[in-house]
Amino acid sequence: MKLVTFSTSGEPMVGLSDGKGVAPLTGRLSEPVTDMISLMNAWDRVQPEIRAIGNFEIPLQDVTLHAPVTRPGKILAIGLNYADHAAEGGKAPPEYPMWFSKAATSVNGPYEPIDRPIVSEHLDYEAELVIVIGKRCRHVPKDRALDMIFGFCAGNDVSVRDWQLRTTQHFIGKSFDTHAPYGPWIVTPDEVSPANLAIRSYVNGELRQNSRTDQLIFDCAHQISYLSQVMTLEPGDILFSGTPSGVGAAKRPPLWLKAGDVVRVEIEGIGAIENRVVDEKAPLPA
Amino acid sequence: MKLVTFSTSGEPMVGLSDGKGVAPLTGRLSEPVTDMISLMNAWDRVQPEIRAIGNFEIPLQDVTLHAPVTRPGKILAIGLNYADHAAEGGKAPPEYPMWFSKAATSVNGPYEPIDRPIVSEHLDYEAELVIVIGKRCRHVPKDRALDMIFGFCAGNDVSVRDWQLRTTQHFIGKSFDTHAPYGPWIVTPDEVSPANLAIRSYVNGELRQNSRTDQLIFDCAHQISYLSQVMTLEPGDILFSGTPSGVGAAKRPPLWLKAGDVVRVEIEGIGAIENRVVDEKAPLPA
Repeated sequence: MKLVTFSTSGEPMVGLSDGKGVAPLTGRLSEPVTDMISLMNAWDRVQPEIRAIGNFEIPLQDVTLHAPVTRPGKILAIGLNYADHAAEGGKAPPEYPMWFSKAATSVNGPYEPIDRPIVSEHLDYEAELVIVIGKRCRHVPKDRALDMIFGFCAGNDVSVRDWQLRTTQHFIGKSFDTHAPYGPWIVTPDEVSPANLAIRSYVNGELRQNSRTDQLIFDCAHQISYLSQVMTLEPGDILFSGTPSGVGAAKRPPLWLKAGDVVRVEIEGIGAIENRVVDEKAPLPA
Repeated sequence: MKLVTFSTSGEPMVGLSDGKGVAPLTGRLSEPVTDMISLMNAWDRVQPEIRAIGNFEIPLQDVTLHAPVTRPGKILAIGLNYADHAAEGGKAPPEYPMWFSKAATSVNGPYEPIDRPIVSEHLDYEAELVIVIGKRCRHVPKDRALDMIFGFCAGNDVSVRDWQLRTTQHFIGKSFDTHAPYGPWIVTPDEVSPANLAIRSYVNGELRQNSRTDQLIFDCAHQISYLSQVMTLEPGDILFSGTPSGVGAAKRPPLWLKAGDVVRVEIEGIGAIENRVVDEKAPLPA
């Protein structure tokens, strides 16, 4: 199943999509479901009703798709998690997963603009498989970790490299507003397995990254199990699970994104997001 | 003014305290104020009503004080921000502020237990001045940054050192559940200036950290201005502004916290939090 957060003219609603049209779920189920997190919380009970839907009455081209979880509680991201990307940065594969976070305010929709910041020209892309957590959990063993997943998205872990590398901590360079676009929908695990999917990014149609998720050093089950030793994972938390080789920073010379560029991230069996780069608007004078 | 989130028997409410008693604000103001963030959003309009309160009818000992913002949108924290702490770790003062984040799920109340994790014995304390953001803002010049502050708290940036140092990224070792206790209330800037306050921590009554906030390398205005070049700050975001020397990891041999220890963080003009360390309960078998 493909679950979307969408709007036509009014407030965002939750819907089911078949890839061509959308069936609104908000106000239609036996429990009040207003957004993706409330849908997750009601999921076990309303799933049969959703599976019975066969009419996708709103054409996809008539809706705006938003970030599936419009405001995740946590955006967690892992560095150097593809062997090929670690190698291009001159790094050995890590012994432990290198988790950092992106500020929750960096969330962005699948087709919304990405800001090239006022304060940097070193703007880069990272195609990533995004895991959406569906259940509140802590201390999940690896063999049960996949049960915590609500679904998968394509994401771009947009990175401002000079700010990322000013100190040892990646957080600041990963947290600019608009720099966590993902979507276009959440594909549930009954429809896709994350183990071996093609993952690619393109800038203005030119292929930049081209790998498969079987290259992940720490797989989805490891990611969830490891994080849950530390913190409670909650419905709507999203995990950016690492990027393969081919980022702009690794090109010689580096290829930074500039205004007008269009970055596409596509993952087999999930779909694609496409975001245009725009120059961040200067703030109004004080 | 001292603003609290408190409960007696029911749901948490917002209140005003004089340090001895509490006057409930929830349901009492001309605008609906249910929690600290809604109070911030109504602040400019309801402030005169709050200033007129003179009767603090519920004795402080009869209430439970919660984390003032019970669920911050972002918990941001800065490393190596006191010259003396940088020196004890053998580090030069940084050229740029070393921002990282703590997971929002690590939030904890001023007198609640701190878990010693199942997965580590390297549990440490860090006394910190906590800044509570009161206004949505981006690109704030330093000379206006202090206007974005709703108030100040005492906080403990509890740290799990082995997990913190497994990779270059501090996030995971700073993000265990219960590891961001702060409070006991928010003291508004009309009552306290953050520029030069005594800051101390004690473990079981023994003085461990003893410094002043004038030792901050990057001061409050710098912190807000810098972060706001990157991301939108929102009401209820909290900033842990760095810790002075004297942490357990810097002792020889290191002094890790263990179950039964009581950690107190006190800041002049603000107040104190005190948290007992308990062994994290083992998860229920699957």
